[in-house]
Amino acid sequence: MKQAIVVRTDLGMGDGKLAAQVAHASLKAYENAGPDAQQGWKQGGQKKVVLKASGEAELQELADEARRERLPNALIRDAGHTQLDPGTVTALAVGPAEENLVDRVTGELSLL
Amino acid sequence: MKQAIVVRTDLGMGDGKLAAQVAHASLKAYENAGPDAQQGWKQGGQKKVVLKASGEAELQELADEARRERLPNALIRDAGHTQLDPGTVTALAVGPAEENLVDRVTGELSLL
Repeated sequence: MKQAIVVRTDLGMGDGKLAAQVAHASLKAYENAGPDAQQGWKQGGQKKVVLKASGEAELQELADEARRERLPNALIRDAGHTQLDPGTVTALAVGPAEENLVDRVTGELSLL
Repeated sequence: MKQAIVVRTDLGMGDGKLAAQVAHASLKAYENAGPDAQQGWKQGGQKKVVLKASGEAELQELADEARRERLPNALIRDAGHTQLDPGTVTALAVGPAEENLVDRVTGELSLL
């Protein structure tokens, strides 16, 4: 089991801001997963990979694909209190789910 | 309500590795919180700050302080599959809890 978190690298977010968006996406997708996926993932040590996307269009396409595959997912929009305009799409988490299913959506992306 | 996640900057972790450790700490401390804290924090938009620590000793001291204040917290040790030695302490999350209580533990630290 794993979770992939895809984050935009074109927004110039600082390291802390970026990490907070990744955490936000991770928790929200986790909560959208069923209890079996949640437990299985935690027992395996919460395997996570953080990947990069070049812009909003790419994140939206990946989110559509995750929904088509019926994988737990969460697309994050920033509240815009700092650094970004309100509503800016920043990150997408896919899973926890079986690794090969997550890879169908995010397998082509590069590690951050 | 907020959650503070403190991460070591002395390990030379890459951005993706660092973000994954932050997400890991965030979720684990969230799960250690009571239902009122969980709900209150989510309703307020999951406010998070990511802060920096210079080494393991500092993280351990902060974790002790969080325990003394009876705040939900989670200290993360990396499984060591990549980049780090197994068992390396990487990050600490404190909260979700009332902001002023979290600040008693992490209020002196700098943003990442």
